[in-house]
Amino acid sequence: MAHLSDLEIANQSKLKPINDIARTAGIPESALEPYGHYKAKIDINQVKDNGDKGKVVLVTAMSPTPAGEGKSTVTVGLSDALHALKKNVMVALREPALGPTFGIKGGATGGGFAQVLPMEDINLHFNGDFHAITTANNALSAFIDNHIHQGNTLGIDQRRIEWKRVLDMNDRALRNVVVGLGGPTQGIPREDGFNITVASEIMAILCLATSLKDLKEKISRITIGYTRERKPVTVADLEVQGALAMILKDAIKPNLVQTIEGTPALVHGGPFANIAHGCNSVLATETARKLADIVVTEAGFGSDLGAEKFINIKAREAGFEPSAVVVVATIRALKMHGGVSKEELKEENVEALKKGIVNLERHVDNVRKYGLEPVIALNAFVHDTEAETEFVKQWAKDNGVRLALTEVWEKGGEGGIDLANQVLEIIDEPQSFNHLYDLELPIEDKIEKIVTEIYGGKKVTFSSKAQKQLQRFKENGWDNYPVCMAKTQYSFSDDASLLGAPEDFEITVRELEAKTGAGFIVALTGAVMTMPGLPKKPAALNMDVTDDGQAIGLF
Amino acid sequence: MAHLSDLEIANQSKLKPINDIARTAGIPESALEPYGHYKAKIDINQVKDNGDKGKVVLVTAMSPTPAGEGKSTVTVGLSDALHALKKNVMVALREPALGPTFGIKGGATGGGFAQVLPMEDINLHFNGDFHAITTANNALSAFIDNHIHQGNTLGIDQRRIEWKRVLDMNDRALRNVVVGLGGPTQGIPREDGFNITVASEIMAILCLATSLKDLKEKISRITIGYTRERKPVTVADLEVQGALAMILKDAIKPNLVQTIEGTPALVHGGPFANIAHGCNSVLATETARKLADIVVTEAGFGSDLGAEKFINIKAREAGFEPSAVVVVATIRALKMHGGVSKEELKEENVEALKKGIVNLERHVDNVRKYGLEPVIALNAFVHDTEAETEFVKQWAKDNGVRLALTEVWEKGGEGGIDLANQVLEIIDEPQSFNHLYDLELPIEDKIEKIVTEIYGGKKVTFSSKAQKQLQRFKENGWDNYPVCMAKTQYSFSDDASLLGAPEDFEITVRELEAKTGAGFIVALTGAVMTMPGLPKKPAALNMDVTDDGQAIGLF
Repeated sequence: MAHLSDLEIANQSKLKPINDIARTAGIPESALEPYGHYKAKIDINQVKDNGDKGKVVLVTAMSPTPAGEGKSTVTVGLSDALHALKKNVMVALREPALGPTFGIKGGATGGGFAQVLPMEDINLHFNGDFHAITTANNALSAFIDNHIHQGNTLGIDQRRIEWKRVLDMNDRALRNVVVGLGGPTQGIPREDGFNITVASEIMAILCLATSLKDLKEKISRITIGYTRERKPVTVADLEVQGALAMILKDAIKPNLVQTIEGTPALVHGGPFANIAHGCNSVLATETARKLADIVVTEAGFGSDLGAEKFINIKAREAGFEPSAVVVVATIRALKMHGGVSKEELKEENVEALKKGIVNLERHVDNVRKYGLEPVIALNAFVHDTEAETEFVKQWAKDNGVRLALTEVWEKGGEGGIDLANQVLEIIDEPQSFNHLYDLELPIEDKIEKIVTEIYGGKKVTFSSKAQKQLQRFKENGWDNYPVCMAKTQYSFSDDASLLGAPEDFEITVRELEAKTGAGFIVALTGAVMTMPGLPKKPAALNMDVTDDGQAIGLF
Repeated sequence: MAHLSDLEIANQSKLKPINDIARTAGIPESALEPYGHYKAKIDINQVKDNGDKGKVVLVTAMSPTPAGEGKSTVTVGLSDALHALKKNVMVALREPALGPTFGIKGGATGGGFAQVLPMEDINLHFNGDFHAITTANNALSAFIDNHIHQGNTLGIDQRRIEWKRVLDMNDRALRNVVVGLGGPTQGIPREDGFNITVASEIMAILCLATSLKDLKEKISRITIGYTRERKPVTVADLEVQGALAMILKDAIKPNLVQTIEGTPALVHGGPFANIAHGCNSVLATETARKLADIVVTEAGFGSDLGAEKFINIKAREAGFEPSAVVVVATIRALKMHGGVSKEELKEENVEALKKGIVNLERHVDNVRKYGLEPVIALNAFVHDTEAETEFVKQWAKDNGVRLALTEVWEKGGEGGIDLANQVLEIIDEPQSFNHLYDLELPIEDKIEKIVTEIYGGKKVTFSSKAQKQLQRFKENGWDNYPVCMAKTQYSFSDDASLLGAPEDFEITVRELEAKTGAGFIVALTGAVMTMPGLPKKPAALNMDVTDDGQAIGLF
C-alpha cells in the first residue's frame, strides 16, 4: 500500500454523507450547514453545552526536521484508534493554507490511512475561511489608506503603519512593495508589504475568539499603527470593526469533516506557528468539547513552540486544561538531531540515536513542567531498524516515560491502539496543570521564563529597538498580554543549526509586535519568514484537473 | 412598503429549501451540491441536454444615469412574472463583486420585491467563486515573478508584463505599486498594479468557458507579457494552466438560488462591463437553457455596451440567438438625458422628457439592428407623474415600439405581467438575428462598425500607440478575435457628459489589450477605471453583524 499517494488513498476512500457524520457526533440538524455532500459548517449557537465538557488531548512533537515527523497523521490516527475503541471522540485540526500547496509543502490533513477527508477540498478553498480572512485583512488596509487619502483626521503616521496586506499565496515579490504611486488621485505613496494570510492578526483573532461578539471586540482592539505622537491607532478609531466582523460571520463557524475511518473532525483556523500561536480555533476545540468526551488536537512545530503557546495562550484564553500530551517522535528525526544528514537516514545508526535523543528528552521534560503527563508516540517509518526501535523503547523505559509505537500512516486507527490505551490511562489520572507564567509578570520576565525554563537557554538579550518597544508597550498598558515567541522551529535556540538539546545559549529578541487584537505580544528572534516564496520548480507544474473535476498532483 | 430597505425585505422573505427549488427546476439530486440551506452549486456534467433548449430573453437598458434604472430588478421581476404565468422559466444573473459593497454601491441582486435571495450571502462571499478567481489570478502573478527570479528561461521582459494582480476590494492605493523590493532574495523589482477581481481575464474566461476543459485551454492561451523580442509569452509557456484550472474547479459550477417569489435563479460570474463583456457565465445561461423553456438574463450598462457584447461576444461563443430584448428605461433617466440634474428629478418636466427620449430611441434602434424585436420596460418610480408616463407611452405608440409599464420593485412579479405577456408574444414570432460584424474583419473595421452603427459616431481615431499595437496584433495572428469596447457607460460617445443621442462625434482608441485567453481584443477609449476607490465615508462605517450572525447595513 505504501506506493499509493495520499491523494490516491483519499480518492479511494468511501466517504459517509456529512449528515451521517453530524448525527454520529450529536450535532443537531438545525446546526448543520452543508457545503457540498461531505463538508459542513456548524452554527455554534445551536450546539448545546450540557455542562460536562470533553477532555483535551494535545499532540505535540520533538523539534521538527526536514525529514517530517507526521504530527497531523498521529493526531488523526490517535482519534481513529479511540473511535475504534468505541470512545466518543472528535479530532480538532488546523486548516492548511492554500498558497504553500503550489510550492513544495505537503498537506496538513494527515497522511496515508490517517487523513481527514475530502483532502483536496480541505487543501484548496475549504469553505472559504481563509479567503474571508484575506478579505477582512485587506479591507482594513483599504480603509487605512483611504482614511489617509481622504484627509487623515486621525493623524495616522504613514511611516508607522504596522498593518500589512495579505494573500494566501507564496509570493516573495510581495514581501516589500511601495503602494499609492501614480499621483494625487491614486492614494498616498508609502512602504508596505504582504504577509501570507495565515500570518494575519485576523487569523489569530478568529482562532482565539470565543464568539462572534468577542471576535468583533478583539478586532476593534487591533493596533494598526501610530500617530506622529506615537499614540496607538486602533480599528475602533476607524469604526470598521462591524464591517470586518460581518465579513467573517461564516468563517467563524467550525467546519465538520471526517477521517478516513469516519471519526468526526472539526478543521478550523490555521494561524502560523511562528508569528502566531499555531493552533486550530478555540471555537472548534470548545464545540468539540461540548459534543465529545475526548478531543484530540494538535499545535504547530515542537513542544517549545506549539505546545507552549497552546498552553499559555490558547488554553488560557479558552479556559480549559489539557488532560494528556502526546509527543510525536521518529527515529529519523532523532538521528538527524544526532548529526545524521537527510541523505544518510536509511542506514541504521544507533550511535546517532543516542546522541539525538536528548532533543526528545527535553520535550518530555517540558511537558512535565506544566504538570502534565506525556506519552511518546514513536511514529514508525519504513527504514527504522529493530535495533533502533529497541533503543528508543529501552531509553523510555529507563527514563520512566510512556511510549507507544504508532503505525497509523500504514494501518490507520489500528496502528494507534497502544497509544490510545495509554492516553486513556493518563486522562483518568489526576493532573496538576499549571501555566508557565502569570500574565501579571512584565513582558521581559515572561520571555525570560520561556527561554530559560522551556528552551534551556541561559539568557535573553533585547536589541535596542526591542528595549525601546518594551518601554512604550508599558506606557500603552500592554504589559499583561501573554507572549507569542517567533523562533525557528528546528532548534530550541534561535539558531536553526543547533540541533539536539543545546545549552548555555543566548536568545536575542530583535523586535516586538503588539497584537492587541489577538491579545499577545510577538517576540521576534532571528529571521522569521512571514511570506514564503516558490521554489525553482513549483509543485504547481505537476498539478492538473480532469475534465470532470478531479484534482491531480495535489500531493 | 416603500420604506423598507432591500435587506429588510430580503430578511422578511420566507425562503424555500434549495432542494425544493432544484426539484422545481428539474435539477437532478445528483447534480446538486448544497452550500448551506439556500444556495447550491450545480454539477453541470449531471444536467442532461434533452435537445430542446430554452429561449433567451436579454434585458438591457438605455444609457445609465446616477439615478439608477433598475435593470437587475426588472430582470428578476420579469422572470417572476413569467413564473406567475406558469411558464417554465429561470433567471440567469451576474454575481456582484464584494469590494464595492464597502464603498457606495448598491447590490446587484435586484431590489424591493424583485430580488434574488439570500441577498446578504450573494453580496458577500457567495460560494467562493470570486475568491477562487482572485487566487488563480494571483497565483499566475506569483508564478511569473518566480519564473523571472529563478533565472527567467523564457526571457520575459519584466517591463512588458501585461498580467496584473487583483483583489476584490476598492483600493486605490494598489492601482500602481512597485513589487519585488528588498534585495536579491526578495524577487525582481518592477512596476505592477492591482485591478479589482471582476476585471481579471480569469473572470472573463470563467464566464465564456463552455466546460472545465475549455476553461483550461482558454487559460493556457492567456498572454501574460512579452519577451524583449516582443514575442508573446503565454500561460502554456509557464505550464501552469492545469494548476490554475484546478483552483477554479468548483468556481466554474453555476450557483442556484431563488427569487423572493421562488423562481429558480442561476447567479454565476460577473465580469466588468467596461473592461470585459459584462454578462453572467455561458455555463449558467446554457445550464438554464437545458432546464427551462425561457431564460431571462441581463447584460451590463446600456445596449451600446452590455447588449453589444452579449450578442457579439457571449452569444457568439455560446452559439445561441436571443429571442427577445427588453430595454429598461425610467422617466428619471430620460429626464436626465434631457438635461435635468439629479436634484431636480422630483419635479414634473415633460419638456426634458421630450429632449431625453432620443437616448431611448437609439437604444431601441440598436436592438433592431441585430434583427431582434425590443420591448421597453418603463420601470416606474414614485415621483413619476401621469403626464410624464403618458408622454412616454404615446411616444412608443407613435414610433411603433412595444412598451410595458413595470412596477416590479413594489409588487414583484405581479408588477411585470404586461411585460411578460409582451415578451411571450415576441419570442413566438420569427426573428432574423444577425451579429453586427464578422470575425474575419480587421480589428479596426470591427471597432469602426461598432462606433458608427451602434454608438452613432462619425469616426474612430487610433492613437499612435494603438496603431502600433494593431500592427503587432496582426503579426501575432490576433485579428480574428471579437472586440470588447471599454467606454464610459453614461454616453454613446467616449465623453461621459454627452447625454441624449450625440452625433458627429469621434471616438479615440488610445490603447488595445489582447485578451487571448478570453478571446477578445479590448479597445480602451477615455479613462477606464479598473480599480475603484472608497469614498470619504465608506458604506462600511454603517455595517455591522449581530451577535447571532445577521448582517446589518449591507444596503
